[in-house]
Amino acid sequence: MAGSGAQVFSIEVLRDFSTRVFLHFGVSEQDAAEAADVLMAADLRGIDSHGVARLHTYFELLQEGRINPKPQMKVVRSTASTATVDGDNGLGLVIGPQANRLAMDLAAKSGTGWVSVCNTNHFGIAGYYVVKALERDLIGWAMTNSTKLVAPLWGAEAMLGTNPIAVAFPGKEEPPIVIDMATSAVALGKIEMAVRKGETIPLGWGMNDRGEATTNPEDIMKGGVLLPLGSDREHGGHKGYCLGMMVDILCCVLSGANWGPFAIPFTLRNAMPTRSVGKGIGHFFGAMRIDAFIDPDEFKAQIDEYIRVFRATRPAPGTGGPLIPGDPEREAEKVRREKGVPLTEPVVRDLLDIAANTGVKLE
Amino acid sequence: MAGSGAQVFSIEVLRDFSTRVFLHFGVSEQDAAEAADVLMAADLRGIDSHGVARLHTYFELLQEGRINPKPQMKVVRSTASTATVDGDNGLGLVIGPQANRLAMDLAAKSGTGWVSVCNTNHFGIAGYYVVKALERDLIGWAMTNSTKLVAPLWGAEAMLGTNPIAVAFPGKEEPPIVIDMATSAVALGKIEMAVRKGETIPLGWGMNDRGEATTNPEDIMKGGVLLPLGSDREHGGHKGYCLGMMVDILCCVLSGANWGPFAIPFTLRNAMPTRSVGKGIGHFFGAMRIDAFIDPDEFKAQIDEYIRVFRATRPAPGTGGPLIPGDPEREAEKVRREKGVPLTEPVVRDLLDIAANTGVKLE
Repeated sequence: MAGSGAQVFSIEVLRDFSTRVFLHFGVSEQDAAEAADVLMAADLRGIDSHGVARLHTYFELLQEGRINPKPQMKVVRSTASTATVDGDNGLGLVIGPQANRLAMDLAAKSGTGWVSVCNTNHFGIAGYYVVKALERDLIGWAMTNSTKLVAPLWGAEAMLGTNPIAVAFPGKEEPPIVIDMATSAVALGKIEMAVRKGETIPLGWGMNDRGEATTNPEDIMKGGVLLPLGSDREHGGHKGYCLGMMVDILCCVLSGANWGPFAIPFTLRNAMPTRSVGKGIGHFFGAMRIDAFIDPDEFKAQIDEYIRVFRATRPAPGTGGPLIPGDPEREAEKVRREKGVPLTEPVVRDLLDIAANTGVKLE
Repeated sequence: MAGSGAQVFSIEVLRDFSTRVFLHFGVSEQDAAEAADVLMAADLRGIDSHGVARLHTYFELLQEGRINPKPQMKVVRSTASTATVDGDNGLGLVIGPQANRLAMDLAAKSGTGWVSVCNTNHFGIAGYYVVKALERDLIGWAMTNSTKLVAPLWGAEAMLGTNPIAVAFPGKEEPPIVIDMATSAVALGKIEMAVRKGETIPLGWGMNDRGEATTNPEDIMKGGVLLPLGSDREHGGHKGYCLGMMVDILCCVLSGANWGPFAIPFTLRNAMPTRSVGKGIGHFFGAMRIDAFIDPDEFKAQIDEYIRVFRATRPAPGTGGPLIPGDPEREAEKVRREKGVPLTEPVVRDLLDIAANTGVKLE
């Protein structure tokens, strides 16, 4: 939804601008186009925090030489169904799609493919990768670790990122089921929005810097932390913590990347961790051939029926009934492809700053 | 913890009794021993709802001829890293360990192994299977669907089971990290306990039969439902719903089992579903060779360090700081191996009823 001061841009303009910014820093044509594609997927699907809103940070990291614009991804270990790759400190937006393709290629050969990635950087939305797998008729998996923000249950400090899990399943006539979820109770973006609006936040989203529950979003921005999915012990906060740790280990310990509180922070503003326990941050990709398990036509027909049965669930009072995972993002995409992407005033200012610094025009 | 009227039994007595009950119904010696082993794992690890407390239900199902005591598990499709198996309507306690072994064998050959299972029944605790994988130095995964109990977010009726996810990672000097979690906010056992004690339950655990939030546990037992992990929209209930659906699809749609509300109920008391969309219920097992990704020694040394770093997290006020997944179950196991397993009076009565009906002595 466009707020006050929002400006609307067509996806083509944003894609072209992002591509040329990456090219400006020496990223290859193919890599730049792919990196822009990942960002556009976020802007199209309504995940505003992960699209061009992040371009200024990528710009800063490239300008400071903190990210390698011409990475050579290297397979350091592999079996018939697995690979561990070193991302050569490239953009996650470049290494992510390459490693994801490798997982899909392994699946083509061996039924499934699983790739753990070290020495990489933030890769955009996890949902992008599993939607790419759908194009090849595969069930895709994507996970990544990220800057520490989330406390483990009963901890008073951030030890994990919001470590998302994405998985997608194709339908036949129905659109696919696309799951893409952070393992924290909420995304940081919701806290930032509450601060901007001067609103309080519900209990269960975060804690202040003393590890106490808070309804003041400022507390979280000033040294506080987010809570894991489930929030507290009574509501299953240990489960969100378990999921965040699972993602962290698959992405980082399995690949040799920086795990937990040692994740390389995404922005230059965040202090670097006190220790390094690996290389860069980590991702984990999976791809499963449907025909490795069942006739794909039968599978997709069942997914169609699955979707219809769940849509027909008796609705809870005051709601329209359950959604199917991926519904809100698909709705957003339909609107934004047609009407463009609304960007808030600070995001537009960031893009103009990039334009001023690189000479790449936003038009 | 032993409550009033609890009796304590040694694990050997319970194991021997369970084994002989299975033998009584014609289960083979090896299968009976393995099925009892799965139940004992639950009783040892303190998951009281899933151990011998369930033996009476298995007994009823075997007595009614609803479960095949001599199943021949059949691989119906496979690739280098996958298999789909038909469990021949066997006990999940028998088919589960066999399918899990198949996943491990595939991993030995191809780096990872993934097995989806249809035509099976309830398999005990998911944690059992991933602990077995640790014995072969593998990262194990286990999931299963189960009787409908959980509403999707914004739904007013049960459409999913508590569909657990288990994953385990081995340490070197430290004990392993063992994750085993239902995808609902809480287990049904917690509701039953509140009913017995005449206590209210927190908001966020369940809804009454009209889909309204409730703090009365009786409401849930009388046609109400459990809520997914995250409870409501504000706290991420859509995420728990996504996870429950993911488990359901991997276990059932991928294998050809009964998914969602059509899961075959575990007890004779529950009505059979109105439709059948597959065979039996479904499980999903995975196994990943650590050396397919990284040097296993390096991995385990990092897991040790991971555990130490997370244990050293600054504690939230009033807590002892974060636990490591698997801690409570390991603690319970230490105590129960030594002091025995406390069984509540209704469970003891159930075991005595089995003894009276089968002639198998509880001693």
